[in-house]
Amino acid sequence: MTILKKINHVAIVVDDIDSALRFWRDGLGMDVTHVEDLEDQKVVVAFLPAGEAEIELVKPTDENSGVGRFLKKHGPGMHHICFEVDDIVSYLDHLKTKGVRLINDEPVIGAGGKLVAFIHPESTHGVLIELYEPTVQETRIRLSRARQLADRAIGGGQAVAGAVLAFLRSLRNNENHDYSQQADDE
Amino acid sequence: MTILKKINHVAIVVDDIDSALRFWRDGLGMDVTHVEDLEDQKVVVAFLPAGEAEIELVKPTDENSGVGRFLKKHGPGMHHICFEVDDIVSYLDHLKTKGVRLINDEPVIGAGGKLVAFIHPESTHGVLIELYEPTVQETRIRLSRARQLADRAIGGGQAVAGAVLAFLRSLRNNENHDYSQQADDE
Repeated sequence: MTILKKINHVAIVVDDIDSALRFWRDGLGMDVTHVEDLEDQKVVVAFLPAGEAEIELVKPTDENSGVGRFLKKHGPGMHHICFEVDDIVSYLDHLKTKGVRLINDEPVIGAGGKLVAFIHPESTHGVLIELYEPTVQETRIRLSRARQLADRAIGGGQAVAGAVLAFLRSLRNNENHDYSQQADDE
Repeated sequence: MTILKKINHVAIVVDDIDSALRFWRDGLGMDVTHVEDLEDQKVVVAFLPAGEAEIELVKPTDENSGVGRFLKKHGPGMHHICFEVDDIVSYLDHLKTKGVRLINDEPVIGAGGKLVAFIHPESTHGVLIELYEPTVQETRIRLSRARQLADRAIGGGQAVAGAVLAFLRSLRNNENHDYSQQADDE
């Protein structure tokens, strides 16, 4: 059976990205690889690597979206955990045989071709869980962003933070992993 | 400045460990390295590695404890994120200069000599954050538990899960790291 490889990210809903970054970036000292306005998902997201995982700060831009309603009801705080899996289709099939309630019975294709699916908190003891199978295309985009960050750090005369290097390594592993998967499929 | 090395664990409050394990272990297929009744902290904790981090399921054994009151108020769900740092004392000093509100101004010494401190959710945009500096003694205890798990998996004729191996590697890295730190201090 395919296994959970690692935590890919923990998503945190915030009401203001700039104010949140004053704590998460300036206070905690985390790097920010990228901030993106995902118009179709009605959120602005900031990505902050922590070892092989990331913290994702998510600010809803529409109070009637899912994340917008979450913020209104619960206030800022942890929203979901995302785990990376090798083969999301067989993983979802396994969960169905265990009677786990899924929000997505089949994987949804996200930005960069990534495959994601959510498990309902009813089955997880109150935690919204995202499952995620990375793709070559998406990994390349993220690797490129992390490289840009490393270049900026070097260009500024600063030591490149260990977190960025760890993140680059984890992306490289994904990239290699996905290449081999693709080769197997061909 | 010392940096956040990685997510050490994400703690999830549950109302029943056995029932929670039916999802997290049997459903998601995660390994369980250890279940422990921490009488002084009035909780039972189950440790489930995911890559270099862990999921910790926490069941309160006293409804008037902090975690007990959390469960009563919010129901089961995510409780806190723990980040590993190199040097918790200088990290806390840095946060104080940034005006971050701390629950623990100085690190608290936990089981196995580990050093921990919590940041108040008021400063973090709603997330309870634990900071954690591992010690040699505690890392050895956890390494020993993970080895026992690997032995059990091999003894049972099963393939040792990649998650356990990744976890062992991350513990080994900590162990080495701590040895070198100790040498620097002497």
